[in-house]
Amino acid sequence: MPEIVIMKEIKGRNEEYARANREQYSKDHVLAVNVMGAPGAGKTSFLLALCKELGSRGINSAVIEGDLYSAIDTEIFVKEGFDSLQINTEGECHIDASVVRQGYDRLGFSNGVLFIENVGNLICPAEFDLGEGLRLITASVPEGDDKPYKYVPMYSYVDAVVLTKCDLKEAVGFDTEYFTKGLRALNDAPVFETSARTEGEALGIAEVADLIESKYRAV
Amino acid sequence: MPEIVIMKEIKGRNEEYARANREQYSKDHVLAVNVMGAPGAGKTSFLLALCKELGSRGINSAVIEGDLYSAIDTEIFVKEGFDSLQINTEGECHIDASVVRQGYDRLGFSNGVLFIENVGNLICPAEFDLGEGLRLITASVPEGDDKPYKYVPMYSYVDAVVLTKCDLKEAVGFDTEYFTKGLRALNDAPVFETSARTEGEALGIAEVADLIESKYRAV
Repeated sequence: MPEIVIMKEIKGRNEEYARANREQYSKDHVLAVNVMGAPGAGKTSFLLALCKELGSRGINSAVIEGDLYSAIDTEIFVKEGFDSLQINTEGECHIDASVVRQGYDRLGFSNGVLFIENVGNLICPAEFDLGEGLRLITASVPEGDDKPYKYVPMYSYVDAVVLTKCDLKEAVGFDTEYFTKGLRALNDAPVFETSARTEGEALGIAEVADLIESKYRAV
Repeated sequence: MPEIVIMKEIKGRNEEYARANREQYSKDHVLAVNVMGAPGAGKTSFLLALCKELGSRGINSAVIEGDLYSAIDTEIFVKEGFDSLQINTEGECHIDASVVRQGYDRLGFSNGVLFIENVGNLICPAEFDLGEGLRLITASVPEGDDKPYKYVPMYSYVDAVVLTKCDLKEAVGFDTEYFTKGLRALNDAPVFETSARTEGEALGIAEVADLIESKYRAV
């Protein structure tokens, strides 16, 4: 059973903790990436494929997992040999900068990319800066192409959009043009088309890794 | 453009409004159904198929749509001839009993089934009683079979579970047994397997309509 940090919410001081995190990541030569998305967007499968790709390029990754309950996702990363730690919010709809710092200090990570997988939620996490250097959203194509029109704060907040489960694009009739039009009304974030299915080859992961690598090299 | 009610949050008094709603629905011979689910779970397509099925049984339906922004979903129902009204929360992560009442009063509906499509979110809506007589969750199979293990408050809160997009079950490797095992640890809610694709026949909708009809006849 992986280690689980339980979040106790500290109201009102999130910005202070986020600033402190940012300073610490910089000292430790760490690029922190806040990975957001709806429940079941495929965040974990995408991140696992991405961590492996970065590893093949000589870049270390660690993962902090945020969930209301369970350590299902952390177990996946630990099994694959990555440093990983679980945060359980016990009902809260987001993770905050304070609990991320507790997790980070316990991980003892430096010189690499720290992925922070947020709670599956397209609303509340966009209000909590974790001190990250990059904000990604994973958007699965079965969720539909209308999400940027509905979840405006989240789609305004992110630096890059990762479309996941693109192998299902035709089956679900996802219209990339309509999705991108909605996104462009808010944000000029790049859009990556990926698929990280266990069977068959992962698609589009190398392109996301190029972005992460260039951001990491600049830390 | 359909009418849109903008939600202004009234803290702390939700239970009072929920109780008042419940009394009003009873007077008006209305079964109110709170329909929850993750973003892109297929709530709207499922509800459209369900409203049509109920119509064929001589039962009237109306739909209140909750979203952060846009009136995309309401436009769909209006086009199909159903009474429908949009609530926009402008960033809030749930709808509350007060705004539902505003929408209900404007709809002027009675003697039928009122569907309240909540904001796409598997966390916060489980904290806000809307005065409904039945709580449904739509869970799309592409979200994955582990959701009851992670979203414990929501899966404890609902009266029935509607699996959507079941035509994709094989493609995404959804394990119904694992899903149901997680659900049963929390809840004895019945599970319906549905698919409401535009092309091809809707599956499992009649069984959900049977549940709704029996609840409505008992109002």
